[in-house]
Amino acid sequence: MKYRAVTSISWLFVLAICTAMPPATISAADGAAESLRVDGARLNATMDHMKTFGSSDSGGSTRVAYSDQNRSALDYLSMLMTQSGLTPAIDVAGNLVGRREGKNSGLSPIVSGSHIDTVPNGGHYDGIVGVMSGIEVARTLYESGYELDHALEIVVWSNEEGGKTGSRSWMGNIEERELDLPSLGDRSIGDGIRFLGGFPDRLAENAKDRGDIASYIELHIEQGAILDREGIGIGVVEGIVGIRRWNITVIGFANHAGTTPMDQRQDAMYAAALIVADIRHIVTAEPGRQVGTVGRLQAWPGAPNVVPGRVVLSLEIRDLDMAKIDTIYGRIVDSANTLAGKNGVKVEFEQFYESPAAITDDRIKRLIQDAADELGFPAMHLPSGAGHDAQSMKHIAPLGMIFVPSKDGVSHAPGEYTSEQQITDGANVLLHTIIGMDRQIE
Amino acid sequence: MKYRAVTSISWLFVLAICTAMPPATISAADGAAESLRVDGARLNATMDHMKTFGSSDSGGSTRVAYSDQNRSALDYLSMLMTQSGLTPAIDVAGNLVGRREGKNSGLSPIVSGSHIDTVPNGGHYDGIVGVMSGIEVARTLYESGYELDHALEIVVWSNEEGGKTGSRSWMGNIEERELDLPSLGDRSIGDGIRFLGGFPDRLAENAKDRGDIASYIELHIEQGAILDREGIGIGVVEGIVGIRRWNITVIGFANHAGTTPMDQRQDAMYAAALIVADIRHIVTAEPGRQVGTVGRLQAWPGAPNVVPGRVVLSLEIRDLDMAKIDTIYGRIVDSANTLAGKNGVKVEFEQFYESPAAITDDRIKRLIQDAADELGFPAMHLPSGAGHDAQSMKHIAPLGMIFVPSKDGVSHAPGEYTSEQQITDGANVLLHTIIGMDRQIE
Repeated sequence: MKYRAVTSISWLFVLAICTAMPPATISAADGAAESLRVDGARLNATMDHMKTFGSSDSGGSTRVAYSDQNRSALDYLSMLMTQSGLTPAIDVAGNLVGRREGKNSGLSPIVSGSHIDTVPNGGHYDGIVGVMSGIEVARTLYESGYELDHALEIVVWSNEEGGKTGSRSWMGNIEERELDLPSLGDRSIGDGIRFLGGFPDRLAENAKDRGDIASYIELHIEQGAILDREGIGIGVVEGIVGIRRWNITVIGFANHAGTTPMDQRQDAMYAAALIVADIRHIVTAEPGRQVGTVGRLQAWPGAPNVVPGRVVLSLEIRDLDMAKIDTIYGRIVDSANTLAGKNGVKVEFEQFYESPAAITDDRIKRLIQDAADELGFPAMHLPSGAGHDAQSMKHIAPLGMIFVPSKDGVSHAPGEYTSEQQITDGANVLLHTIIGMDRQIE
Repeated sequence: MKYRAVTSISWLFVLAICTAMPPATISAADGAAESLRVDGARLNATMDHMKTFGSSDSGGSTRVAYSDQNRSALDYLSMLMTQSGLTPAIDVAGNLVGRREGKNSGLSPIVSGSHIDTVPNGGHYDGIVGVMSGIEVARTLYESGYELDHALEIVVWSNEEGGKTGSRSWMGNIEERELDLPSLGDRSIGDGIRFLGGFPDRLAENAKDRGDIASYIELHIEQGAILDREGIGIGVVEGIVGIRRWNITVIGFANHAGTTPMDQRQDAMYAAALIVADIRHIVTAEPGRQVGTVGRLQAWPGAPNVVPGRVVLSLEIRDLDMAKIDTIYGRIVDSANTLAGKNGVKVEFEQFYESPAAITDDRIKRLIQDAADELGFPAMHLPSGAGHDAQSMKHIAPLGMIFVPSKDGVSHAPGEYTSEQQITDGANVLLHTIIGMDRQIE
């Protein structure tokens, strides 16, 4: 691993207000760990400072992966890690990894991470809350002199928004052709990794096996409105839902909209409309949190005066239980075939995407719940409907996720908002979950 | 009007087989008119020759308006008109008008026309059947020595497929900005008119008032499959349907497809699907030949993983009765608003196109029916669901249309087909309808 020289000095002001304290050892057994708390003001000051890297005109952030703003922000975070007792390094995939050794060098590290890249004109919280809280937790441990048995690694994953490149490199499944794909910015993914200080031709070195990491925990904004609506500050994530996506092609016969009587039509649009409506009815017909979405629909030839001969629509189903996804999909196929038969059209299905569900570890869920209980924060269990870097760890380590509320569920937009108190509370839960993971998960 | 010098010689072979016969006068009263018949073999030979102007690789025709092929074909038709006793001239809009004077110079002319331009990779019959039959009818009258009281004008309208430019110039409603629009070929419409020998800056000279034309008749392929399915050779067109088109905008709220529970969605796609299905149900709920079509639908943002926040779909309704179009539209609006209200979305309607119905003249319909009866051809009455140059005449003159079958209703494709016998039969009905119009409509 290579650590780029830090060139940015814009963060010096922020650092200046936080004098590094001399570490003093606290034993895991002496009970003082329970009273540890993050410095919420300091944490939120670093959250604020992150806004300076790529602030957009509309009040949001444009800090896409592999951009100059991305690199400048990493420079700032490297210095912040150093102040927090973490040794920063850029790994071959452009991830920034800050590591503090543990007392037992025979143990694999506890890893906590998230991302700081945004979508174009995105928000200030998605990903950033997890990174800044992770560093603040490390700093709290460091400054209190608390030593974990495990090493602790705080990771800033590269290119989450453009395909989770950084975290997936730890799974060892980045395909070579991906490196030539454009990122959300001006650079290809390969060039972007190089720009951050990584080595795209050496990605294989990043691949981890089960056991290489003791456990993984990620704090993230919910990106839905469940916690916000319920007025609950802590979400214990049950898992990241699995996703399957298909294209459904409805094949009728394109015809002149003026000369083709209604009873002579093989109208792919009409049949597609019946199928779209039916999908919602089937998905909602049984209890559970499964979701089904038709987000895209195209008709050919697509002119107001032609009966469409072909319609292609997307179907996405998400649930924690992949078998449930398949059951619902099977019902949709059966029903669509029936509807097609009744309306003189044909229907074809083709899956084009799959992301298996990543179920969180029961022990870590319990540790999060316990931490929230100890701290006096209401918590609720819920699935993550969105994907996260955490899911890349599912074959490597027991994983957990903590959610904090997202105002009105807004995400990927300047209006993203999580209050300072909610962030501080989330970081304290992360702190005590990590202490618990250190004690309970080898 | 200006008549371009004829430069093409490719038609000379066809002409050579048809020796012009010396005209001999037949009186309208002497009964010989009833025995007149077109020369079907000659007519179909000219149909065949037209295929040489812009034949496409797939066996169809690409002879778009204002192309070199279009002009070469007009050269051929000019010569054919001359052989048929018609004096050809290109009018200011690029229409080719072949005129034979009548016995009564105080009467306005009977006009029959259609077009020879095609869509790219179109067929050999759409428009062409009417033009070639019109010229053959003139030739039959001329060679038999039959003199009409009215002058007879056979018109080849310019740019039917790209906006009925030629026929609409007779209505006087070509807007100046249209001249700068691209045609289906390489030239702008203005340049194209000039290329054919017209004068785009003098289009106002073409505008006709009611009375400037005695009556108008057009023979055309049906472009639907009604005659073909019924096995009937002659269609008495009741009118060209009116058309209204709207954009219907469904406004919901775009949201993450993973984090937004089904009961929290304002899904514009789902509501749009209900509306599309409903449109068909409303249109088909009452008897009649009205048609309603959703040919275009777009969703925003249009990604498989985002609940659509906005869907825009087209609605087109056609009927001979504009009031019926409005009644059906009103029902659709009411029902869509109800559906929108139930599903947490809004719906907006905006009309973007209107083409009023053009009802054919009762006397001409009767003359067509009588001609078919006399000739022993089964005929049926039906509306034209497609637009035609004829509709441009509706404010100027009584109008009629004769349909011949279109195999399987195919149109605007190489597979267009009408048999030689069907074309000959249609031309004979046109001949006797024109003779009738000459006698009965001043």
